[in-house]
Amino acid sequence: MLTKKRSLSGDRCFSPEPIQRQIAHQFFDSISALPLVCPHGHVDPALLANPAARFGSPTELFIIPDHYIFRMLYSRGIPLQALGIPTSDGSLIETDHRKIWQLFAEHFYLFRGTPSGLWLKDELYNVFGVDEPLNSRNAGDIYDYLEEQLTLPEFSPRALFKRFNIEVLCTTDAASDTLEHHQSLHQEGFTHIRPTFRPDAVVNLDTPGWRENLAKLESTVDWEISTYATFVQALEERRAFFKKMGATAIDQSAATPYTTHLSDQEAEAIFARALVGKLNPGDAQHFTGHMFVEMARMSVEDGLVMQMHCGITRNHNPAVFEQFGSDKGADIPLQIEWTENLRPLLEVYGNNRNFHLILFGLDESTYSRELAPLAGHYPAILLGPPWWFHDSVNGMERYFNQVMETAGLYNTAGFNDDTRAFVSIPARHTVWRRIACNWLAGLVTRGLVEEEEGYEMARALAYDLARVAYKLD
Amino acid sequence: MLTKKRSLSGDRCFSPEPIQRQIAHQFFDSISALPLVCPHGHVDPALLANPAARFGSPTELFIIPDHYIFRMLYSRGIPLQALGIPTSDGSLIETDHRKIWQLFAEHFYLFRGTPSGLWLKDELYNVFGVDEPLNSRNAGDIYDYLEEQLTLPEFSPRALFKRFNIEVLCTTDAASDTLEHHQSLHQEGFTHIRPTFRPDAVVNLDTPGWRENLAKLESTVDWEISTYATFVQALEERRAFFKKMGATAIDQSAATPYTTHLSDQEAEAIFARALVGKLNPGDAQHFTGHMFVEMARMSVEDGLVMQMHCGITRNHNPAVFEQFGSDKGADIPLQIEWTENLRPLLEVYGNNRNFHLILFGLDESTYSRELAPLAGHYPAILLGPPWWFHDSVNGMERYFNQVMETAGLYNTAGFNDDTRAFVSIPARHTVWRRIACNWLAGLVTRGLVEEEEGYEMARALAYDLARVAYKLD
Amino acid sequence: MLTKKRSLSGDRCFSPEPIQRQIAHQFFDSISALPLVCPHGHVDPALLANPAARFGSPTELFIIPDHYIFRMLYSRGIPLQALGIPTSDGSLIETDHRKIWQLFAEHFYLFRGTPSGLWLKDELYNVFGVDEPLNSRNAGDIYDYLEEQLTLPEFSPRALFKRFNIEVLCTTDAASDTLEHHQSLHQEGFTHIRPTFRPDAVVNLDTPGWRENLAKLESTVDWEISTYATFVQALEERRAFFKKMGATAIDQSAATPYTTHLSDQEAEAIFARALVGKLNPGDAQHFTGHMFVEMARMSVEDGLVMQMHCGITRNHNPAVFEQFGSDKGADIPLQIEWTENLRPLLEVYGNNRNFHLILFGLDESTYSRELAPLAGHYPAILLGPPWWFHDSVNGMERYFNQVMETAGLYNTAGFNDDTRAFVSIPARHTVWRRIACNWLAGLVTRGLVEEEEGYEMARALAYDLARVAYKLD
Repeated sequence: MLTKKRSLSGDRCFSPEPIQRQIAHQFFDSISALPLVCPHGHVDPALLANPAARFGSPTELFIIPDHYIFRMLYSRGIPLQALGIPTSDGSLIETDHRKIWQLFAEHFYLFRGTPSGLWLKDELYNVFGVDEPLNSRNAGDIYDYLEEQLTLPEFSPRALFKRFNIEVLCTTDAASDTLEHHQSLHQEGFTHIRPTFRPDAVVNLDTPGWRENLAKLESTVDWEISTYATFVQALEERRAFFKKMGATAIDQSAATPYTTHLSDQEAEAIFARALVGKLNPGDAQHFTGHMFVEMARMSVEDGLVMQMHCGITRNHNPAVFEQFGSDKGADIPLQIEWTENLRPLLEVYGNNRNFHLILFGLDESTYSRELAPLAGHYPAILLGPPWWFHDSVNGMERYFNQVMETAGLYNTAGFNDDTRAFVSIPARHTVWRRIACNWLAGLVTRGLVEEEEGYEMARALAYDLARVAYKLD
Repeated sequence: MLTKKRSLSGDRCFSPEPIQRQIAHQFFDSISALPLVCPHGHVDPALLANPAARFGSPTELFIIPDHYIFRMLYSRGIPLQALGIPTSDGSLIETDHRKIWQLFAEHFYLFRGTPSGLWLKDELYNVFGVDEPLNSRNAGDIYDYLEEQLTLPEFSPRALFKRFNIEVLCTTDAASDTLEHHQSLHQEGFTHIRPTFRPDAVVNLDTPGWRENLAKLESTVDWEISTYATFVQALEERRAFFKKMGATAIDQSAATPYTTHLSDQEAEAIFARALVGKLNPGDAQHFTGHMFVEMARMSVEDGLVMQMHCGITRNHNPAVFEQFGSDKGADIPLQIEWTENLRPLLEVYGNNRNFHLILFGLDESTYSRELAPLAGHYPAILLGPPWWFHDSVNGMERYFNQVMETAGLYNTAGFNDDTRAFVSIPARHTVWRRIACNWLAGLVTRGLVEEEEGYEMARALAYDLARVAYKLD
Repeated sequence: MLTKKRSLSGDRCFSPEPIQRQIAHQFFDSISALPLVCPHGHVDPALLANPAARFGSPTELFIIPDHYIFRMLYSRGIPLQALGIPTSDGSLIETDHRKIWQLFAEHFYLFRGTPSGLWLKDELYNVFGVDEPLNSRNAGDIYDYLEEQLTLPEFSPRALFKRFNIEVLCTTDAASDTLEHHQSLHQEGFTHIRPTFRPDAVVNLDTPGWRENLAKLESTVDWEISTYATFVQALEERRAFFKKMGATAIDQSAATPYTTHLSDQEAEAIFARALVGKLNPGDAQHFTGHMFVEMARMSVEDGLVMQMHCGITRNHNPAVFEQFGSDKGADIPLQIEWTENLRPLLEVYGNNRNFHLILFGLDESTYSRELAPLAGHYPAILLGPPWWFHDSVNGMERYFNQVMETAGLYNTAGFNDDTRAFVSIPARHTVWRRIACNWLAGLVTRGLVEEEEGYEMARALAYDLARVAYKLD
């Protein structure tokens, strides 16, 4: 009944129930050729700005930069050094990329049933044409094959960008970023690669290296930021520059979505304490909460869409942080609260129809309890797609199940891949599109929406909602 | 495979899996003729007390009073004024109901996949015979048709009450209510329309207008309520009157299910501070928590079933509250805690077998963690059906999935529609009954309950459990 | 379509979808003969140490010792006395076991759709050959039949242990336990019955009877425990003895997974206050939090696997506690937090690959938010199976759905039955195995894992993971 063929199933992600599966196919067929809209992610613009850029070895492409991958291997006892992850102190790591790949292949079974496993299979098959499951025996051959492919012009980032049919790709960039890569891309006519303003490094006063981050911002704006007022002025100037360079959105992140209004005096006082390195307890949280409101004010003024990503403890594992730095798979979500925390911001800006506030969280218990009711009432609020750990088959199904009845489809923001792994972009969108079509097919087979409506909703989920939410039209 | 016919599917809500669907049909057929038991809701008794009452225009029936509907339209940027929602200050609103209906129809796609959309389709089709999906093109014709129907005697509230096969309908009434409509209904023999005692407006000391609410209560009991002792006496007298008028239940609501025992002196002191408008921080919460225990005491004494509805922040959006008042779709749920909060109440009354305490919450993370284990132990506790946002296809399925294994079916309280939208009552019960039958069919097809048991459980969910829980036998 | 045959369905727990069901059968057939691995539970070793031990009457076997059963009956108003549950004060209870059984049978419908109901049907059918659903009419006959069977040698605990194909059974034993039954079992060669070190009674300073528990520990180690230092020494000595008697694991439990480091002076001071019965507020919690870290240290040193069971309020109902004692179905789960609470422990021991820390909780909202991300990063952490209330069809499906994509299958610890109801062991493992196979069949039919992988994953879930997690190889 099941064939032994090991290539990627054309039915993947769809329900086994024949009628639902057939309708899911119909919906998917109707939208699978639509271009990819990528309004939030972490691709390095340098990859695309330089026509000669290449991805490097298979290990450099698939393992070393991807904390989704190496955290799983680490959790089963494989040292990060053995995977070639660079150390902060320059201590020795494995440099034989073929050997790292072999180790990865031997442990590829760890990714069974995970989204990373699904994306990797899709990438190997659909991007590189590897129609064999990776294992310890064929690891070397597949490495050699991939290594060769990666040197070819058709596997350059630019060639893949075209092949992937990406209509727009937004990167995420520090407030101090000069956007030189975006400038050169724009000069070449790549205006569909857009920056996103991310001020966390200077707004969150307890960020490691805050003083240096501020110095970079000073250097970029070319004036001294010695007061809260000049700090705000610098942010406003940078936002204007980002907007000029094509940005339609900003992104702000904190452990909690706490928002508050500080008086100018209070904000100045905290900022002054930060400058001398003498923050009081609570200062950083109050300041971030205040800056959420300030960023909302600026968004109302300049029209940039505002994203909030909340609910993660960064660098939970001090040993890993000290040896390897940030973004090493050691970020762990927290319980969070939106209803009371967002109130100060919403009471000022929540009723503004032109203000788009897109919310992302990792605490799924808030989907049906807080986020969907908030989105189903406030004109400003849209819900972002399932984020990070929840960007998965089950994560998406929980999201559709828990969000849509109360928020309504049209208060959501479509999909974004949120990835720094450029080559995984089509695989991630495909999972979203398939799961969305399967969900809609379920609604149709259960008599809850009409088939014609399903086609429109499928298109919205795959394409339209993201464009509208991020003002990309 | 799917027809283009746009009428309501007879399979709606059922699984597409053929065997499960067939069994779901069998169960549903066996219970669909049972009368509707409506033990908790917000229908205005005046509608039924006056034989000449009519629903007004289609817009007055479907849109203006229904915050489920207009909150969704508001969330997508349609001003409440444009929907004819009355303003507190009497400022201008749209008064052309046909135009409002047109606007609604143009945005009817917003309700795709929502419970409101499902109910509306059911009401239009099954109550009014509109067998065409509402859209911008046919909006005017459908409006004219509905408008005409609504003037006919067979679409009077009383005629529909009979047609809907409602066995008992409980309204929700303020402690100060004279129940004049219930009195006249009873004199006519409509004893199956029963009041429910809801003392929130005088018990929650921080309710806007508390002093005026208390004055109304004073006026109703016709004595001065100048102390906590006389306040309690007034509540007891009113409960006795409600019971005489057919009430079998009370309903009490607060943001949190916090319960506590205050001494008489403490209660008197807080009440005295409330009377002079000088509450201390925490006073209102302690007093409400204490009154939960007091109401439980009275229920143990007078036998009235006690309902608790907890977990919502009322009037989250001050701009909407100031301009339009309460119940305008701006109530947002909160995380809550039952295990520790209910303890003071339960240690006194939780083991009483004749005391029925029916719990309702909006924090679904408490279903499997707190509510089901509490109901599966304490003789007094029953769990109410999925409430408000969760009165939906997925909300019910989450409830069955997360509650039943631990609480057991017979510690639940069946369904209640909780609606002020009288015409939506059958549609709401139908969704519950269909989802219940589909859930039971799933248990049968998975070999977890026998088919014969399924029939009994279907009847219990549709009819028996509500009657037993609310002492309606 | 459905037969009227009332025996246990061979398809039970499987999806009705034909292809998924068929693959689930294939997987289940491939693993159903594997021996049972029972690494955590509460079976009394005396049952097995004495060859002459018998289970007593059907009521003594199925009802009196099983709080899963009598809590449900109690919740519907049946007094615990009427079920023969012994009272602390020796006040009168029902002693006619046949009459209790009759009462139980009359209320057997309360267990519809519950895991207890499913286990009971399985036990009656598969262990005792009762192929008729229990009801009020056949209750007496079934009682008589069971009573007779239970006197037969083939229904002795030892005979059933063999028949059940149990490869290893770990009991749970107090720190002060002399393990005399384990000693005699070992002398007979029953080395596959292993103790587990559970120090809660002496570690949690607010345990009722703590001083007496400590006295028992003193008596066992045969020296005075007058200081924190000697207390730790006693625990270390006992762990060594347990290990010698075959233990591979310890188990520690608290309401919250709060962990902290106390200095020796702080720990000594709290311990001294406990000895004189004058604990300060917070002392017990800090001490337990510190002892979690201490137990982790010892586990790193002696290699014993560390289990943490967190998130339950014990003895929530004081009336039941006073009259009947602990473990009477009145334990209610609480919301808990892992991410911040475990940090002090993890920053010292979380990166140790040889340290196995198996986590169990009852707050399912932490599955996808905290537990899976923690397990998917820290080498030490493994996730235990769904615990207690969640050891059920839906509980397991929620676990698979919410844990596996992020944690990965190989960061989980397989199944354990956690039961004191010895006869229910095969039924519990069967539900796990069936649900696991059905979940895997779903992954295969949805194209997410290959069929070959499914066989390996099924075996891992049924057998391998538990052996590896508990170091039973």
